Parts: sequence; C-alpha cells; structure tokens
Amino acid sequence: MADALERLKQRLIRVTDLQRIARLLSWDQQTMMPSAGSDARADHLATLSRLAHELFIDAETGRLLEELRSLPETEPDSDDGALVRLARRDYDKSVRVPAELRAEMTRAAATARPVWVKAKETSDFATFLPALEENVQLRLRYIECFDDVGEPYDILLDDFEPETTTSAVRNIFEPLKAELIPLIAELRNNDVDDSFLTGDFPVDRQEKLAKGVVSLFGMRPDTWRLDPTVHPFASGAGIDDVRITTNYDPKTMKSLFSTMHEYGHGLYTHQLPRNITRLPTGGPCSLGIHESQSRLWENLVGRSLPFWRFFYPRVQEAFAGQLGGVELERFFAAINRVQPSLIRIKADEVTYGMHVVLRFELEQDIVNGRVDLRELPEIWNERMHEYLGVDVPDDAHGVLQDTHWASGLIGYFPTYLLGTVMSVQIWERLTADVQDLEDQIERGEFAALREWLSEYVHSLGRKFSPQDTLRRATGSTIDSKPYLGYLREKYGAGGVAA
Amino acid sequence: MADALERLKQRLIRVTDLQRIARLLSWDQQTMMPSAGSDARADHLATLSRLAHELFIDAETGRLLEELRSLPETEPDSDDGALVRLARRDYDKSVRVPAELRAEMTRAAATARPVWVKAKETSDFATFLPALEENVQLRLRYIECFDDVGEPYDILLDDFEPETTTSAVRNIFEPLKAELIPLIAELRNNDVDDSFLTGDFPVDRQEKLAKGVVSLFGMRPDTWRLDPTVHPFASGAGIDDVRITTNYDPKTMKSLFSTMHEYGHGLYTHQLPRNITRLPTGGPCSLGIHESQSRLWENLVGRSLPFWRFFYPRVQEAFAGQLGGVELERFFAAINRVQPSLIRIKADEVTYGMHVVLRFELEQDIVNGRVDLRELPEIWNERMHEYLGVDVPDDAHGVLQDTHWASGLIGYFPTYLLGTVMSVQIWERLTADVQDLEDQIERGEFAALREWLSEYVHSLGRKFSPQDTLRRATGSTIDSKPYLGYLREKYGAGGVAA
Repeated sequence: MADALERLKQRLIRVTDLQRIARLLSWDQQTMMPSAGSDARADHLATLSRLAHELFIDAETGRLLEELRSLPETEPDSDDGALVRLARRDYDKSVRVPAELRAEMTRAAATARPVWVKAKETSDFATFLPALEENVQLRLRYIECFDDVGEPYDILLDDFEPETTTSAVRNIFEPLKAELIPLIAELRNNDVDDSFLTGDFPVDRQEKLAKGVVSLFGMRPDTWRLDPTVHPFASGAGIDDVRITTNYDPKTMKSLFSTMHEYGHGLYTHQLPRNITRLPTGGPCSLGIHESQSRLWENLVGRSLPFWRFFYPRVQEAFAGQLGGVELERFFAAINRVQPSLIRIKADEVTYGMHVVLRFELEQDIVNGRVDLRELPEIWNERMHEYLGVDVPDDAHGVLQDTHWASGLIGYFPTYLLGTVMSVQIWERLTADVQDLEDQIERGEFAALREWLSEYVHSLGRKFSPQDTLRRATGSTIDSKPYLGYLREKYGAGGVAA
Repeated sequence: MADALERLKQRLIRVTDLQRIARLLSWDQQTMMPSAGSDARADHLATLSRLAHELFIDAETGRLLEELRSLPETEPDSDDGALVRLARRDYDKSVRVPAELRAEMTRAAATARPVWVKAKETSDFATFLPALEENVQLRLRYIECFDDVGEPYDILLDDFEPETTTSAVRNIFEPLKAELIPLIAELRNNDVDDSFLTGDFPVDRQEKLAKGVVSLFGMRPDTWRLDPTVHPFASGAGIDDVRITTNYDPKTMKSLFSTMHEYGHGLYTHQLPRNITRLPTGGPCSLGIHESQSRLWENLVGRSLPFWRFFYPRVQEAFAGQLGGVELERFFAAINRVQPSLIRIKADEVTYGMHVVLRFELEQDIVNGRVDLRELPEIWNERMHEYLGVDVPDDAHGVLQDTHWASGLIGYFPTYLLGTVMSVQIWERLTADVQDLEDQIERGEFAALREWLSEYVHSLGRKFSPQDTLRRATGSTIDSKPYLGYLREKYGAGGVAA
C-alpha cells in the first residue's frame, strides 16, 4: 500500500503542477502578455488542461485509489487519509464526464466570452442570448452525467463549494434575505456625506499605499507582487509566489479596498500547508472559504474603526487635497455608507448580499427550467427593484454586468455570500481567541491575526470539506446569525457606522 | 499513412506546447517572479521537461515514425517530409539517453549554477572545480550513449548546431584565427577617442530609445515586450508573443546595442512559419542561425554608418550632455573602436571571434581528456595573452566569466562565432538582392530587410539543417571569407572605422 500511495502522489504532483502552471499562464495573460499572444495562449492552456485531465482520469489512478480504499477510514485526519479521500472524490466526479462534453464546455465558454464583452458594451442582451443558451444546455448535459442527484443545481454548486447542497445554501440565504430587505430600506435614506471620496487621487500615491498596506498586513517579503489590471484578482504559481492585482481609478481610492480584498486571498494561498504543497490537498479548500479570507481583510479589518485609527493619517497625508480637512469620523462613515446600487462589485457591505441572493435564485430557476432565458432581463430588473429599490437603466448595468455566465460558470455566485457569512463566524472566534486584537490592529500589528488564520484555517488546505474546515476552525458549521448580528451592530440604530 | 501523420502531429504539438510553456516560465523567472518562488519554479520546469520527454520518447512515437519512414524521401522539401525527418532525428537521439542520466545532468547543472555564482563572486576557481568535474564526467557519459561517433565533441556540438561536425567548425575557425591575431595586433594601438561613451546616460531615456529602436526596426505592434534584466536575452511563448530584455547601465549606452541584438533574435522567432508554429519544424533552426540574426541587426545594421546617419540625431538629442558636441564621424569611430579586452560579451566585432576560438579549443581539449581541469585557469590566461594580448587579473575576469559550463553547456560557444560568420554571408546576399538597402537604412526604412529575412531565412523554420538553410538562403554553405572581407573593409587600412 505504501508503494501505491507513493505512485498516486507522483501522479497527483504532476497534475497539480500542471494546474499551477496554468494559473501562472492566466496571470501572465492578464498582466504581461502582448495582446496578439492570445491565440497561442489559448492553445497552451488547452494543452495543459487536457494533459492534466488525462493524467488524472487514467485507469491507473483508479486502480491505485482502489488499492488505497481503506486509508481514509483508518486515518481520516492524516495527510494521506485526506489525500486519498479527496482524490477519490475528484476522480469519481471526473470520470463521469465524457472528454467530448468537457471539450465542448471549454469551447462554448471561450466562444461566449467575446460575445458577452460586445453585448455588454452595446447593452444588448439579445445578441448574448444564443451563447447563453448554449452554455446552459451544456451545463444541463453536465448535470445529466451524475445520476445520484438531489437537486440538479447541487451538481454545479459542488464544483465551487464542494459537499454543499442547494438546500443548505437556501437555509442560509433565506433568513438573510428576510432581514436584509427591511434593513436596506431603513438605511437607504441616510444623509452621510461621501462626496470627498470622489475627486483627485493620484495613481502613483494609490500604488504606494496599496503596496504599503500589503507590507503592513505582513506578507513575507520577496514572496509577492502587485500589478495593475482592469479587474482585480489574486493568483500565483505557489506558496511563495503570490500575485495579486488591483485597479487604480484616479478619481477614487477604491484600489485600497480591492488590494486588501486580494491580500486576503493572497495570504490564504501563502499560508497553505507547505509539506503537501504539490498535492491537491495542499490547495485552497473552496471558493467560499477563499472568499471568507478576502472579505475578512477587506471588511472586518479594512472597514473597521481600529484599522482606520492607525491608517487614516497615512491616507490623509497621501491625499491631502481631498482628505486633509476630513476628520476620521466623517471618513469612516463615508467608506461605510449604505447605498443600494446597480453593480455587485461596487456594493457596500449591507446591500452586497442581495446581489448574490438574486443571482442564486435566478440560477436555480434557469437550471430547473422555470425561466425562459429571453425573459431574464425583465426578471432581473423586477428583482433589483424588489430587493434593493433600484431601477435598472439598461442590461449592461443589469443582467449583463458579470462575466460568470458567459464563461459557463453557473453555481459560482453563492460562494461570494457564503464566504462573507463565514468570514464573520471566523472573526468572532478569532476575536475571542486573540482578546486584544482590536488594540493590536489599532497599533498596526497583524502578526497574531495572520498566525491565527494560518493555524486554524489556512494550514488545513483542502484536506477537509468546507464545512468540516469551518467547524474545525470555529466549532460550528455555517450560520447566518453572526453575520446578521455584525451588520446590526455596525449599521443598526446607534451602530458605529450609523 | 495520413492517419499516422495526424497522430504524430498531435503528439508533437503537445511536446512543442510544453516546451514553449517552459520558455515562458523561464522568462517569468528572470523578469517577474518574486525571488522566493524559485523552488516551486524548479519543480514546475522539471515536470514540464519530464512530461515532454516522456511523451516524445514513448514507443508510440517510434511506431508512427516507422510507419512514415518513406515520407522524407518521397517529399523532402514538404512540411510533412521535413517534419518526419526532423522528428526521426530527434527521436533517435533522445531514446539513446537513459532517463536517469538525463535527470543526473539536469540536477548537476542546477547544483553547479549557484556554486559558480559564488566562485565567480570570490574569483575562486578551486571551489567551482568539483562541480565542473561532475558536469564534464556526465557529458562524457552522455557521449558514450552514441556509438557512431566521429569525434566525441561532435555529439555535444550537435545539440546546439545540428548536423555540424567539429572538423567543419575547425575549418572555419582556423583561417579566421590566422587572420584575426595579426589584425588585432595591428589595430590594438589605435588612438580613437571613446571617452564620451562613458558618463551620464539617464536610464529613462535609454529605455525610450530602446523601445524606439525596436519600433523603428518594425516588429508588429502588440506582439512584443521589452523588459530590463541583468543579462539580456530573447524569449517568448509564440510567434506573436516575443519577449526581449536588455540591461540599462546609467554610465553607458550599451543597452541600445544589446536591444538591437535581442531584436534580431526576436524578429527571427516572430517571422517563423505560422502554418507549422506548434510543430518542431516551426521552431528556430539552430543556435548558429539564431545568432546570425542577432549579429546582423546588432552589427551589420546597428554599427553601420547608414544606420547612424539616420539615428544619431535622436541619440544626440537624448544624451545632449554627453554627445551634443560629438559629431557623427567621431561617434561612429568610437562605437567601432577595436580594443582587446577580458570579457567576451563586451568585446568589439574584431576581437570577439578570438574569445570564441579560445573556448572552442579548450572544450575539445576537455572532452578529449587532453587537459587537467585544475590547470584550466592557467591555460586560459596564457591563451588570452597569446590571442588578444591581455593579462587576466583574476578568474572572475577569466575562466569563470561565463555561465555555460556551470549549466553543463559544452558545445554551445562555437555557435556564437558560426552565427557571426553566417550573418555576413546572409548580409552579402541580401544587399545583392535589395540593391538600395543602404539608402533605405539611411532613411530609417527596414521593411524590405525584414521581408527578405522572412522569405529566405525565417520562414524555413527548422525544416532543414543549418547548413542546408544557409545554402537555400545564400547559395553557399558556411564560409569565413565574406566575414574576413567585411572586417578588412571595415577595420583595415582606409576602412570606414579605421
């Protein structure tokens, strides 16, 4: 069995290496590649993906897993036991999907993306509809590959948030929705002045601040880089090769918040378990857990009063023309202003959740055939009015705003809100464990925070399911109450940001 | 047979893709990677290399090649005939080398490199000796894998300049040596003033000029990038993804010459045949042919009077403080000043060749066991005195200056001079074909030059051997006479740079 284990590992190391290499190629494509290089890049990414897939679903993988079948039961918590359990799960899923369907899904997503870009530019949903229909049809065929289905949407969700069911997500989102809609209605007519957050924010100073905040939060030197891109993201080729990006808008300072968000993703990947870094168990647990880390640094640290007590003088100095006369309290209220808006990625902490709930509901309707895709814009606009009280002027600011569906990614959106909810559960537990955390943050000290996250979340890698990981870290599986409590305390009557 | 051909191509496309991906990873390592990322990068490069090798030497490749055995004879000039011929040749070489020896060579080179860096820093050859001995021993074992050997050195040379024998190289280098030594002795005591080439050359203006010269020479927009590195090089991930680097020294303007050199490499890869770009025949022919392109742009264009008649005003404007009062003729004489020196990569056009001859002679002595490696520094210093009349003060400026031996690259050096010799043959032919080329260059026009190179050299890719490629382009195989004639005319009594 030791021999089978070693051979399985050698095989999985190759697969993991190819996947990491593909990540670097994607990063390069979005940051460095001359634009005419895109055709060759598509070829190279397709070759890596096919090779990794073939290596993984090879019959030899199945044979080795069969030989190691008992390991996850005899030692469920060990690195090896977790590896075999995870590989078995991934393998059983992968072998069910015919190579042709997989190729068709990849091709359809690649074809749909530029169609979506153009449709969004011209705000013309009709031109995107055929591509969307094809992607949806392919997802339905994908679902059909699995016969042990509870709800069809479970299959798609599982690719992004493993071992999490649609009904479990509904159980989290329903009470949130019931509380958020009235809370938003109550908070929407505030008279918080945030006019000084728009104006003159020189890009070179934003860049210095962005790099400053990553250094302050304490990524190990020489292990990361930060580059500008249109859409911020976090990537990298390994634990000590973390690459995050941000977007500098000369009229606002929002790059700082997106940098803190991506730092959270980056720190997670930087603190993943070193000893199993080339194995699938050494990767991040799920998109939800990933998002819990980015939201924690962006919101629970980056929109908190203790942080700004420390950091505001630096920002004031950098943007003296804009913020020189604005005292901390006004600044803090402005960056936390609740204001229902059209675009998810620009939403504040309170309204953000409803953007995700809307997409989660629509995706289930799509997958269950309860909606005619032609009517999506109309339904979208109605729900936006119902949930957030905003009127959608055109599809570019409505149903066409996100790239996910164009890339065939259905089942991805819920992880944004799951991560946000889990971030507060993690925060509650860590503030209980690190009792003077607020004081530390107010002094610009983040070592204890990083170390707690490393020990209780990051170092678990992908050894356990997302909910098992959360339970090991906090003592509880996912629960919306801490998040709602946090919003009420921060934004409700008498709250710090009220 | 059509089916076998298609299956062979699909296999070779994968191998080629993996090799191109590895090139991008190496580029990234030298330009963008956070330094702590090097361990993971080594793992990823090793995985790519092993996978490409295994895919290539798989028995199925041999079976397909056997089935296609007659193709190179029935259609030797077609893309498919050339592909099968080339793949057969590469395959027959690859299968002879045991995987363990290949792995040992890779490991030994990786181990030797940091040892060499340190030895060079401290100018201490003795600390590098054991690593060098191991690399040499492994090369001898590599040679033993081939039984049909003429001279042992042939085997190593063939990896860099295929189908070129040691005796053929000697036949080129011997007459060169006989003429160069007296020519250098004659030219060494010139009184050309080049003091103004050292001083204040602001890096931002060097960078603007470097990008300007690449644009002027006319690489297609959006297909290239230029970045700073310690050692300039050319790389890329495909025809439309060309990446060249240069080094900016604030005290000199040598970055401009290294940029023109790397542009030559870059243009070659940019103009390789598009229709077979993912096959081995779509790659560059050899290191010698590659170098002929870089030397052509660096020297035959970039150190020529017509070019500087056009370009000097821009350089003068950029570096007014240094060059404002220096007229063109003095500048031209200075950039072409002959001055024997210690370091190969800083050598002028005339002395450069002797640096390569010295290494070629030493490498044959090493491979044939005619030299005790401990005595290398002494022999090196003697020859430098004999060939160039310079005294080597320490090993860092002598035998330790180049990285090649530390990376196990024995047989590589001759290609530098072979390329230089071939560059003049190509230049002679193209100036005969494009009769007003000098006038075009003086007007800053390079389209006809690029197009000639594309048609007669670049578009042949790796379909034919280096000498066959040269013959198709110029009507002749390699010949040292044009090069010697060029040096005499440019540098001899009454020459333009005399």
